[in-house]
Amino acid sequence: MGIGDDAALCSIPKGMQLAIAIDTLVEGVHFPVITCPYDIGYKALAVNLSDLAAMGATPAWMTLALTIPQTDDAWLAPFSQGLLELAKVAQVSLIGGDTTCGSLTVTIQVAGFVPINSALQRRGANPGDGIYVTGTIGDAGLGLASVQKRIKLHNEVQQFVESRLNRPNPRWREGKALRSIASSAIDISDGLAADLGHILNASAVGASIQLGSLPLSSALREHLSLEAAWNLALSAGDDYELCFTVPPNQETALQEALKSYSYTRIGIVETTLGLRSYDTEGRLFAPQKIGYQHFS
Amino acid sequence: MGIGDDAALCSIPKGMQLAIAIDTLVEGVHFPVITCPYDIGYKALAVNLSDLAAMGATPAWMTLALTIPQTDDAWLAPFSQGLLELAKVAQVSLIGGDTTCGSLTVTIQVAGFVPINSALQRRGANPGDGIYVTGTIGDAGLGLASVQKRIKLHNEVQQFVESRLNRPNPRWREGKALRSIASSAIDISDGLAADLGHILNASAVGASIQLGSLPLSSALREHLSLEAAWNLALSAGDDYELCFTVPPNQETALQEALKSYSYTRIGIVETTLGLRSYDTEGRLFAPQKIGYQHFS
Repeated sequence: MGIGDDAALCSIPKGMQLAIAIDTLVEGVHFPVITCPYDIGYKALAVNLSDLAAMGATPAWMTLALTIPQTDDAWLAPFSQGLLELAKVAQVSLIGGDTTCGSLTVTIQVAGFVPINSALQRRGANPGDGIYVTGTIGDAGLGLASVQKRIKLHNEVQQFVESRLNRPNPRWREGKALRSIASSAIDISDGLAADLGHILNASAVGASIQLGSLPLSSALREHLSLEAAWNLALSAGDDYELCFTVPPNQETALQEALKSYSYTRIGIVETTLGLRSYDTEGRLFAPQKIGYQHFS
Repeated sequence: MGIGDDAALCSIPKGMQLAIAIDTLVEGVHFPVITCPYDIGYKALAVNLSDLAAMGATPAWMTLALTIPQTDDAWLAPFSQGLLELAKVAQVSLIGGDTTCGSLTVTIQVAGFVPINSALQRRGANPGDGIYVTGTIGDAGLGLASVQKRIKLHNEVQQFVESRLNRPNPRWREGKALRSIASSAIDISDGLAADLGHILNASAVGASIQLGSLPLSSALREHLSLEAAWNLALSAGDDYELCFTVPPNQETALQEALKSYSYTRIGIVETTLGLRSYDTEGRLFAPQKIGYQHFS
């Protein structure tokens, strides 16, 4: 049933569970005031789809709670366009919402379907499992530095990294393909070190990762020192790639399941608690929160 | 599955649909800045439960997106208490949420279960159906006048009407009992005239109501002129009672289904479009938006 009654009515296919995620973006906190409305609409949905991806759920529907200072078609039209274009790609229906007056705040809740007892979770990683990430990581961190004018990049590179920040590519197709293969999964919103850390804590295991294996875009490799690039990949957030673990006996299945997608093995789960990062010469590397000086 | 993974996982009982509602309360818009945090938490859930009530759905779970200026336990503790006390009564589980920093904005989404194809809707009223409301109406409007110091009331009366404004009593039990009996239903959030109007429009019918039949509390009857009381009942919102219609052949079933609850017949559905209100002498009454002068 469409919008217009007091509540939306939804049916859930037989044998499926619902995965439900909710995220709020606040102007000036989660995106700079200068962000264009198209990107705000797009990203508000994207970060939620990324949560569904981490559970291996197929996106199904969403609700929108939009608080705006005033009704302004010049703002609402591109905002809706950004939101609905991604919704169309992800085959997500808008089933309800509430529009209120106040400081710009966008809350989206998404629901997805996942077969009963087959959702990916943070817990489940075991010693010996390989650790993987999709796509490339660190780009959104460089995009934020660019938006905040902490680094000056060539036009094309600037567009690439800012687009990685403002229009992340949620990996629900990959998440769905990983359902019976990965032993754990999470999406990278706070940086690889923090988010892989959530998997390790939830699974009561540790891990080693090889920084030389991190998938870095040419933008990062060509415009930053290797150390600065690693720090961005480890500590900057907003990439919305997936990080997941795969048991050794599922390696072949993994290759088949993700053959159309980009993914990289970066390390291994171990019994010793904690996360250890090694540089290309085998030395322990201490990640640093990336600061202004790295871009000067 | 509890809070802590990327998304919550929920199962839906066999034969059930989900009814989903979402509502945002913004400080200074939906509640005065002076509203106590307990009442904000309570009301944010209550208005959503009222939407489920209007669909005849049994409340099941909720998510909370809370935007607050700063983390403040002295505020969060009573806010949570108000929210969770009502959640306990309604047997609603908090399955997820997001807390962000910004102007005070509370978005709650609730989901409830309703047997497939038996949800109450706005469309469905037919000429000859009786029109009913639960409880008493207009109290929250008087409560708002009291909070805004537009009227001075005795302590006990003031407490009653302000409590009707800040702690509405969502009628999910009544809504559930009306599932196979009412031909249409809505909750009264914008005032009886507007909300009954939604039923009439959705059902392509009209109606006559008898103002002498409106269920008015003694607070309204004793502190306002009859005309002012009628105007509040018709045009002030925030009562969160149910308005519903019942076909003549369901009258006996209605008496049985709502025998433990308070409800009143106020009019009849007609083929002639529009809503007509008649005073106790049978004259047409034109509702007025209640203004300052009514309380002076």
